[in-house]
Amino acid sequence: MKQSNARTECPAAQAETPVGLLCRLLRGTGQVMFQNNAWCGLLFLIGIFWGAYQGGTPAVAWGAVVGLVVSTCTGRLLELPSNEGDEGLWGFNGVLVGCAFPTFLGSTGWMWLALVLCAALTTWVRTGLNNVMAPWKINSMTFPFVLCTWLFLLAARALHGIPAPNLSAPALTETFSTAGLFSFADLLAWWLKGVAQVFLIDSWVTGLLFLVGLAVSNWRAALWAAIGSALALCMALLFGASGSAVAHGLYGFSPVLTAIALATVFYRPSLRSAVWALLGIAVTFFVQAGMNMLVAPFGIATLTAPFCLATWLFLLPLLRLDDNRHPDHTDWHNKH
Amino acid sequence: MKQSNARTECPAAQAETPVGLLCRLLRGTGQVMFQNNAWCGLLFLIGIFWGAYQGGTPAVAWGAVVGLVVSTCTGRLLELPSNEGDEGLWGFNGVLVGCAFPTFLGSTGWMWLALVLCAALTTWVRTGLNNVMAPWKINSMTFPFVLCTWLFLLAARALHGIPAPNLSAPALTETFSTAGLFSFADLLAWWLKGVAQVFLIDSWVTGLLFLVGLAVSNWRAALWAAIGSALALCMALLFGASGSAVAHGLYGFSPVLTAIALATVFYRPSLRSAVWALLGIAVTFFVQAGMNMLVAPFGIATLTAPFCLATWLFLLPLLRLDDNRHPDHTDWHNKH
Amino acid sequence: MKQSNARTECPAAQAETPVGLLCRLLRGTGQVMFQNNAWCGLLFLIGIFWGAYQGGTPAVAWGAVVGLVVSTCTGRLLELPSNEGDEGLWGFNGVLVGCAFPTFLGSTGWMWLALVLCAALTTWVRTGLNNVMAPWKINSMTFPFVLCTWLFLLAARALHGIPAPNLSAPALTETFSTAGLFSFADLLAWWLKGVAQVFLIDSWVTGLLFLVGLAVSNWRAALWAAIGSALALCMALLFGASGSAVAHGLYGFSPVLTAIALATVFYRPSLRSAVWALLGIAVTFFVQAGMNMLVAPFGIATLTAPFCLATWLFLLPLLRLDDNRHPDHTDWHNKH
Repeated sequence: MKQSNARTECPAAQAETPVGLLCRLLRGTGQVMFQNNAWCGLLFLIGIFWGAYQGGTPAVAWGAVVGLVVSTCTGRLLELPSNEGDEGLWGFNGVLVGCAFPTFLGSTGWMWLALVLCAALTTWVRTGLNNVMAPWKINSMTFPFVLCTWLFLLAARALHGIPAPNLSAPALTETFSTAGLFSFADLLAWWLKGVAQVFLIDSWVTGLLFLVGLAVSNWRAALWAAIGSALALCMALLFGASGSAVAHGLYGFSPVLTAIALATVFYRPSLRSAVWALLGIAVTFFVQAGMNMLVAPFGIATLTAPFCLATWLFLLPLLRLDDNRHPDHTDWHNKH
Repeated sequence: MKQSNARTECPAAQAETPVGLLCRLLRGTGQVMFQNNAWCGLLFLIGIFWGAYQGGTPAVAWGAVVGLVVSTCTGRLLELPSNEGDEGLWGFNGVLVGCAFPTFLGSTGWMWLALVLCAALTTWVRTGLNNVMAPWKINSMTFPFVLCTWLFLLAARALHGIPAPNLSAPALTETFSTAGLFSFADLLAWWLKGVAQVFLIDSWVTGLLFLVGLAVSNWRAALWAAIGSALALCMALLFGASGSAVAHGLYGFSPVLTAIALATVFYRPSLRSAVWALLGIAVTFFVQAGMNMLVAPFGIATLTAPFCLATWLFLLPLLRLDDNRHPDHTDWHNKH
Repeated sequence: MKQSNARTECPAAQAETPVGLLCRLLRGTGQVMFQNNAWCGLLFLIGIFWGAYQGGTPAVAWGAVVGLVVSTCTGRLLELPSNEGDEGLWGFNGVLVGCAFPTFLGSTGWMWLALVLCAALTTWVRTGLNNVMAPWKINSMTFPFVLCTWLFLLAARALHGIPAPNLSAPALTETFSTAGLFSFADLLAWWLKGVAQVFLIDSWVTGLLFLVGLAVSNWRAALWAAIGSALALCMALLFGASGSAVAHGLYGFSPVLTAIALATVFYRPSLRSAVWALLGIAVTFFVQAGMNMLVAPFGIATLTAPFCLATWLFLLPLLRLDDNRHPDHTDWHNKH
């Protein structure tokens, strides 16, 4: 196993050098979509910066960097097992925290202080939740980010010092707009935005960069990300989801993650695991729609909770879809 | 143990014949109230059809059939352990999904597609949740139905394609009507409706059929179902619960299930286990009232969640109420 | 270990005498703040009575006594391991139930009946939840009180027989008042009220009595309770929390408990564990603010849930902050 784990895309990853740290940080960005690959992470970061600056919210990009650095360094300070750090597993929740805070909250000093605390928190919450889930042979995935960010977003509503201008107001019913006429170009943009929204970015160019980044690391992951966003988009239109949510890619990001997880990470590629992943995408779509209503009274976003919940529901039965489960599966479990 | 498990009410249950499949389907209906008995399941189905047609909602009955068949076949397709299928354990969550969807949702094509997906989902979610709970020596009971149906009912609020005409609007306070004057005949009807509502049926005749079905399989189960509904009804009137909820039997169904579970399934009959079951009924009543308020802002129903939560609270301490716990208990755990 | 556990503050604790029972009851009160010490519990009770009578709500004090006695006797009736009873571990959830019910609910006969049932319930729910959490090497702490009381407070909203005059109305946004000008005496009172609110008492004198009670048992616990309330108060003012909540000590009680737990119970005192506890206090502050918004739509209080959640997040990673974890830690786990 050691050979297969000795990734060659960044030989310096384990070194105590600035290059080694940079490599671990970039891998942390890649791990949001399960890619232990620095080049993939670099393309993700470029996508984040492009989308954030294009959208007039540069704080999102710098938040991502701060969250990534803080959470990665926290793992070192707490002396967690260093092999996890080498693979970028300390940083992926932190980078998402860093994207989420400036997306929803006003850029005050108190907000940045809270961002730093929350990003650091995700690192040991991940260790804790993985301990909880270890007997069930599942992993906390991005749920540490979801849990910690939910708590801080809710707290922002109760604290004057952290304004929350971009959280929708708590409401008992979702604001609902029917999708009007749309062109094929619209469809293409919505599909790519579904991929971009994994990092809370609302830009089709970013989505394209993310797909390229995935392909650099693993072409199957890129393919399944594309399938996940496309199938969810079709279902959203057929089942009549809110048009504005569809147009911002908000029905796509969770199915993208479920697709990558089920088809390429936890199960060996096969016809049966492909069917399983397609079912997973469909269920994630409904879970996303349902959780949108569940969080509406609290005025927060679902974040990637629908992906976590749906994927757990497909992993917990411990079904064997192939002769063996994906060999990396057990391995991934042991490591994560 | 094998002898005692070799039920004789349906010798064909394990055979790969249409009769065998029918037998497994009927047992699946019976397992909603923990009865591994085809005749009991048949009487339950008759009760469902009577109540659905009488109430002008035949789709509920046909939904039950569809949900039952889909979830049972899913267990076969996934190659889950066949002894579970022989005892009807793949079908009981699916039949409840099939009752719930047409009860709350409009009968569109998309709704039926969602029903099929949700019924299938319950089969492997049950396997997954049982894996989660195995270390605690408890069982997911009807919670797979609750969890999956909650997600889809919430999703229906966000999707034009699945209208939800019979879900109450999300609200911060329950609509509250005091119980007016009532006769002994009213009491009798409300008491029987409490049993019928286990399958979401609002008919006292159905409640009577369910009690007969239980008695065919296990007279103690019938007795405790009757006690559960009666005690909960008394408490609802004494503590001043909403009159309309009481009159539709909505305070009865969860205590009915708790009573059967604690008094006849998980503990050997004795004076102490009877007291334990009575306490369980009382606590379930309060949990039902509390969860009514908990789900109100989301505009969904509690389903059988109060039964699951309250019963778990009585099983988790692993108290021994007798010389031994109910022998079928361990056995039931191993199998479920 | 036996020697160190043989507390000498009350030699009669294990005796089947009225004095022994009294000792176990007082220890139960002390265990709310992790103190297995009858004198500490006595000072807590005096504080409760002072605050309740001073505040014109004597029912709170008598509720505390009833809840304490009922939950302690329930442990005996259920024949739970008697060493737990000797250390007061049956009573600490019950005494909190007894404080909470008359604080929020009207003093009707039905309320007192519900109080008795709920207090008894906490005893076996604690056993059950500890069974659930044992594999993760954490403990349910005051969560049995939180869970059971939440269910009954919610139920009170649905039941005429249990009026809930002092629960705030369900709302989508918190009523929010900015803190006006305040003096140093105000700060002092708010700081002490933060300690008093552990038992839902709104009196600075009670807070002082609680600190004295803690000091009698363990000066470190008193010190950390003081630090916890002070740091949370500072953060609440700096981050701009609701002024009325701050002035009633409502941001203090959860951090007080987190501070005692992390700095004196679960980790051996050291510089590293002190930093860990300070981080825990800060995170608890945000969790308290966030959960205030989470429970607002249901019109219930957070109770001590923020303490439980935040402390679990700091215990679950099983970090070793010292050469060894606190020796009492393992011990405490084994016993609780």
